[in-house]
Amino acid sequence: MPSPAPSPGARGYVVPIGGAEDKISDRRILARFVELCGGSEGRVAVLPTASLLPTTGDAYKRVFRELGIADVVVVDVAERKHAEEERWSDALEGVTGIFLTGGNQLRLSTILGGTPIATRIRRMNARGVHVAGTSAGAAFICEHMIAHGASGATPRAGQVALAPGLGLTNRIIIDQHFRERDRLGRLLTALSYNPFSVGFGLDEDTAAFIDPRDHAHVVGSGGITVVDVSQLAYSSMALSEVGDPVELVGVRLHILSNGAAFDLSSRIATPGPHRPADPTA
Amino acid sequence: MPSPAPSPGARGYVVPIGGAEDKISDRRILARFVELCGGSEGRVAVLPTASLLPTTGDAYKRVFRELGIADVVVVDVAERKHAEEERWSDALEGVTGIFLTGGNQLRLSTILGGTPIATRIRRMNARGVHVAGTSAGAAFICEHMIAHGASGATPRAGQVALAPGLGLTNRIIIDQHFRERDRLGRLLTALSYNPFSVGFGLDEDTAAFIDPRDHAHVVGSGGITVVDVSQLAYSSMALSEVGDPVELVGVRLHILSNGAAFDLSSRIATPGPHRPADPTA
Repeated sequence: MPSPAPSPGARGYVVPIGGAEDKISDRRILARFVELCGGSEGRVAVLPTASLLPTTGDAYKRVFRELGIADVVVVDVAERKHAEEERWSDALEGVTGIFLTGGNQLRLSTILGGTPIATRIRRMNARGVHVAGTSAGAAFICEHMIAHGASGATPRAGQVALAPGLGLTNRIIIDQHFRERDRLGRLLTALSYNPFSVGFGLDEDTAAFIDPRDHAHVVGSGGITVVDVSQLAYSSMALSEVGDPVELVGVRLHILSNGAAFDLSSRIATPGPHRPADPTA
Repeated sequence: MPSPAPSPGARGYVVPIGGAEDKISDRRILARFVELCGGSEGRVAVLPTASLLPTTGDAYKRVFRELGIADVVVVDVAERKHAEEERWSDALEGVTGIFLTGGNQLRLSTILGGTPIATRIRRMNARGVHVAGTSAGAAFICEHMIAHGASGATPRAGQVALAPGLGLTNRIIIDQHFRERDRLGRLLTALSYNPFSVGFGLDEDTAAFIDPRDHAHVVGSGGITVVDVSQLAYSSMALSEVGDPVELVGVRLHILSNGAAFDLSSRIATPGPHRPADPTA
């Protein structure tokens, strides 16, 4: 369960990103995150635990510095046995934002799950610290995480494996690299087990900035496929065997892009403002 | 426009198949088509025009014979200049079913479009002859045909090219090899131009048997993704530039499998009967 926020609106943003966010040109996702975290006044912790590349933490440190955050710390927990060290606790002190890099979400859950760092991040988010994650980092953010699964548009029983995630929210289940890796089927399968969550299929370079009132705002160059199963009339999941297509009747789908919003409470989608059509085209 | 049927219920079935239908083991799609066409009393014409392989027509002839149709004729129109020949007219005489093979749907539309054969097939279907098509043959069956497009789950402006098809129905737009080739985005794009049609995304070895009253019955081992845009609240298509994600709010989606049905008039989905869960599992 997400830690209870001390008062409505006091929770920090939760920002899942679909992976491969722009780090070079307009960098609008990372710039928006930096702005949220207080810009030059902010302090950001980068957790590269998901990644096996030793350079990942420093690469993000450099980008966040270029975007104006002077105070960036890399919390480089690479093995579970180091997750309880006191120095991480000091490093997290006073941060306004936490960023989880990409890599393998099972590294995040197996190394950080159940440790004081995980508890600390949940409490910090409940008290107003913003938490973003890209790719594997995005998958890990939620209570229920897609650990792995097969690609394809049609949901099939056994297509997806869920695992407990960090638990900042249980209102959504995330899938990332969505368009690029053909993941509608596995997201539908994940939702069909228990249709209480909303599915967010995040394209690359696309993020959902979920504000303290559970409004998700779309930022980036791709789309978010919002899968709302609250009006599901039928699911065959309980009767399906592994590999069978799962029948679902009554799924609602929205495709949202930069500037659009989705209210996770009312489940109402609001399109973004669009440029007027070119009259000479 | 589809030719008007002389009386309600007199039209033949329209049977789009998602490609790669089983031709060796249980062959349930082809067997069901054979049954519709009258079995040993039937006469089936195979049109291999979509295919560049010279053996395609004879391969289907053999399968249909194995399934009990003694009288199978191959209408092998390989070039447009031969499409008006009198012998095809004789060959089609008295058939109870017509089968369009896979290949390239643009061969079907460029070779048969506007010829007496196309007109003849439309009239025959309106008078009760059943017409099935697999893969390219399925795409060609409808009034609006997906000619080609890019893969991916998120719809993007310019992602799909539509072309006029044979025109047996304008109530659906078909996409085939659906799960296997990641085609939700291009089907959504095709529908978003003019949201009056229903999209059928057909997995391989899966068919929609659309009866004379416009009830589609699912047969096969995969799924049909039914995309209903009749309640679409917003589409950004008119404002999108090529490559932009297309925003869509209020798409309804159903995933149906063997035994399920979809009423194209009321747009109500009925799940198939499922085996009871194994009590020992």
